[in-house]
Amino acid sequence: MLEKLKKQVYESNMKLSEYGLAPFTWGNASGVDREKQLIVIKPSGVPYPELSWEKMVTVDFNGNVIDSDYNPSSDTLTHIELYKAFPNIAGAVHTHSKYATSFAQAGKAIPAFGTTHADFAYGEIPCARKLTEEEINGGYEKNTGLVITEHFKNYRIDPDAIPGVLVHSHGVFTWGESPMKAVINAATLEIVAEMAMNTIMLNSSIEPIDSYLLDKHYYRKHGKNAYYGQGK
Amino acid sequence: MLEKLKKQVYESNMKLSEYGLAPFTWGNASGVDREKQLIVIKPSGVPYPELSWEKMVTVDFNGNVIDSDYNPSSDTLTHIELYKAFPNIAGAVHTHSKYATSFAQAGKAIPAFGTTHADFAYGEIPCARKLTEEEINGGYEKNTGLVITEHFKNYRIDPDAIPGVLVHSHGVFTWGESPMKAVINAATLEIVAEMAMNTIMLNSSIEPIDSYLLDKHYYRKHGKNAYYGQGK
Amino acid sequence: MLEKLKKQVYESNMKLSEYGLAPFTWGNASGVDREKQLIVIKPSGVPYPELSWEKMVTVDFNGNVIDSDYNPSSDTLTHIELYKAFPNIAGAVHTHSKYATSFAQAGKAIPAFGTTHADFAYGEIPCARKLTEEEINGGYEKNTGLVITEHFKNYRIDPDAIPGVLVHSHGVFTWGESPMKAVINAATLEIVAEMAMNTIMLNSSIEPIDSYLLDKHYYRKHGKNAYYGQGK
Amino acid sequence: MLEKLKKQVYESNMKLSEYGLAPFTWGNASGVDREKQLIVIKPSGVPYPELSWEKMVTVDFNGNVIDSDYNPSSDTLTHIELYKAFPNIAGAVHTHSKYATSFAQAGKAIPAFGTTHADFAYGEIPCARKLTEEEINGGYEKNTGLVITEHFKNYRIDPDAIPGVLVHSHGVFTWGESPMKAVINAATLEIVAEMAMNTIMLNSSIEPIDSYLLDKHYYRKHGKNAYYGQGK
Repeated sequence: MLEKLKKQVYESNMKLSEYGLAPFTWGNASGVDREKQLIVIKPSGVPYPELSWEKMVTVDFNGNVIDSDYNPSSDTLTHIELYKAFPNIAGAVHTHSKYATSFAQAGKAIPAFGTTHADFAYGEIPCARKLTEEEINGGYEKNTGLVITEHFKNYRIDPDAIPGVLVHSHGVFTWGESPMKAVINAATLEIVAEMAMNTIMLNSSIEPIDSYLLDKHYYRKHGKNAYYGQGK
Repeated sequence: MLEKLKKQVYESNMKLSEYGLAPFTWGNASGVDREKQLIVIKPSGVPYPELSWEKMVTVDFNGNVIDSDYNPSSDTLTHIELYKAFPNIAGAVHTHSKYATSFAQAGKAIPAFGTTHADFAYGEIPCARKLTEEEINGGYEKNTGLVITEHFKNYRIDPDAIPGVLVHSHGVFTWGESPMKAVINAATLEIVAEMAMNTIMLNSSIEPIDSYLLDKHYYRKHGKNAYYGQGK
Repeated sequence: MLEKLKKQVYESNMKLSEYGLAPFTWGNASGVDREKQLIVIKPSGVPYPELSWEKMVTVDFNGNVIDSDYNPSSDTLTHIELYKAFPNIAGAVHTHSKYATSFAQAGKAIPAFGTTHADFAYGEIPCARKLTEEEINGGYEKNTGLVITEHFKNYRIDPDAIPGVLVHSHGVFTWGESPMKAVINAATLEIVAEMAMNTIMLNSSIEPIDSYLLDKHYYRKHGKNAYYGQGK
Repeated sequence: MLEKLKKQVYESNMKLSEYGLAPFTWGNASGVDREKQLIVIKPSGVPYPELSWEKMVTVDFNGNVIDSDYNPSSDTLTHIELYKAFPNIAGAVHTHSKYATSFAQAGKAIPAFGTTHADFAYGEIPCARKLTEEEINGGYEKNTGLVITEHFKNYRIDPDAIPGVLVHSHGVFTWGESPMKAVINAATLEIVAEMAMNTIMLNSSIEPIDSYLLDKHYYRKHGKNAYYGQGK
């Protein structure tokens, strides 16, 4: 069941590990089958070298395991909230990648300082608010997802244009049109975070990129007028 | 004698080197057999590529070599104090890993800034006080251990919940329920230290993680109510 | 057609990727045949592992594709302006390499702090001015090239002695007497940028290298009195 | 002639490259035969992959090439001054390694902040004064050596206890009882420099290591009372 999706999710998890974004078991990638309303995700706490596509876990949108003896990632309920709120995404990733997590721990968004960022996301990568004690003690992982999706709703941020978020004092979630695209977004976000940190250290009063340069680079690569790459 | 433990200790030392935590000969891992009251540890100053499990050195709790022509690690008497004071640990590791040692050299604890830290340790990684001139000149390595264990006792820190410490102007000791677990704790501590340094540079007034988020993550992975991973 | 140049450009692009200067598809190298007034450049958005020398794209000095089904790099028109304004160069490279791009994002030149820099470039690596909204919206890539070449003209900078530039809020262009030399200059510029950032962090009031030490090192390696290396 | 020494010097140069301390051709190792008063050193500007032991160049103490068609390293006359002034050393190394060179560019010594440093050197790694314009324009490489050796003489620093130095605005020289030991000292100095920079960033008012801890660690590894390692 869902063999093709499981293989995609497995390969995405392995790439996440290969990119160095998930030391030990600190990260996970998932994919969704929107017709069947099923999500496939990494099993919890299993080291990457021990994974195989058959070990990927299928859950429904309430988090019930459908066809596995493995527990799904402990972050599964967060992934589900992303899939529910962001209708165009087909893959999601969680990491504790070093530079992006440092921003999350500092409680700061990653500003869009340059075209590397603009090629990837149409503005800063936001840092969602802290969860309250109540939100942590009751339904922590689901509430993590809700805090993210409410941030995007409240600030009218388009999740298709800003494919990632920082969770305060925690780490990173990214998403995309496929599980592998969510992994690439996680890798890009980490590079962008490292350069943003260096930029701040070199010039603490630097302003974000000009809006028209942001526009130019974002729309050079995204949307119907994109002209980067080899076209369709 | 102690063949199984020697193999564990050998493999733990090799992993320590593979993780890049011990350039040249700057690090060592040990294990304990509590029934026999014997410790197995890396020989002093032997490069990792020249190690084999047969070269691991057995010492008793007074530091006497039991069955080897090799000198044990010069830090052996520090390891012994850890085993004597912390009854639940079965492995210990010493490193000069770069970021954690930078905190030790700065004389600062590593604050618990995020969930990566909380998944690993239930609060900051303390920095023990400097040794006095007398403590250094008479029984230096044993006194290093005593300064660590007294810190944990005086501040009522649970060594099972805080599996590592910084030695002022020196480096790192970690421990765990096995030699390999102590190595994994050393690797995790180094990643956490790097992110903590970045966090401070991004936001010098940032506060440690909220206590309820610390609780949530620590107990999600540790203790009888843990639900991370594949269970028992 | 231009088989030899295409092979040089292909190998230069692969080396750019191997040096870690161009994650994903973020970078490109080109070469020029000045007699034929033709430029060979990487195809746009094609991952490095999928490249072959036959896929390199030939364009004329107006950017018209001569002999390929592939679109050339979206930065092609910038490369062309470099070749038009700098008559002695035969190769050009664009990267978003991390430290150099951090300076570009900070809007700061890379000062010549030491002899590593002086061995490579005869003075600071300048950061060109921001493009205006009009320059971005009409002919962005060509205008990027013009802003670079006007900077060198206005400040009377010799492009043969300063083989690279930072584009504000964007990244790096380097050039040289061959495509591979432009790649080596990109790699060197990145190392020099990293050391310059560390230098500023260690001593924020440090002055650039003394002019006579700059002279000594630059002319030890460059020009008719050079005595570094094995001579002609 | 000098086959054994050439092989040692060749292997030391290759290790220097393998350690990442000498990108491109930016570094060199040499060795001395004190009986014959001859020095063997890397040829100038030859990439490491093209080296062989037969290409190592022999020079006398005036810098005259004895038996090679290759030019010796452009830094040869600096090495010679080290061998002349420091009678116990048998190998010397020059690098532009990143963190140590950042200190040199900042014009700052590397303080002895911890036991990693104390295990290696008995105090701070000094930064020699800038050369004057006259010293640079007449006999630059020889004068670089003289500025180093005069620093050690003027400040009564023992080169056997402090096996390296920073050259202002330039880079690093290290030395040791063999060419390979000089390479290991260069690698250690780079690690120590990185940790020192981090230490300063974490605590800008931190003081160097206590003198008695410096003594303890240095003499635990060096001199007749050393007890680190496996003895003689």
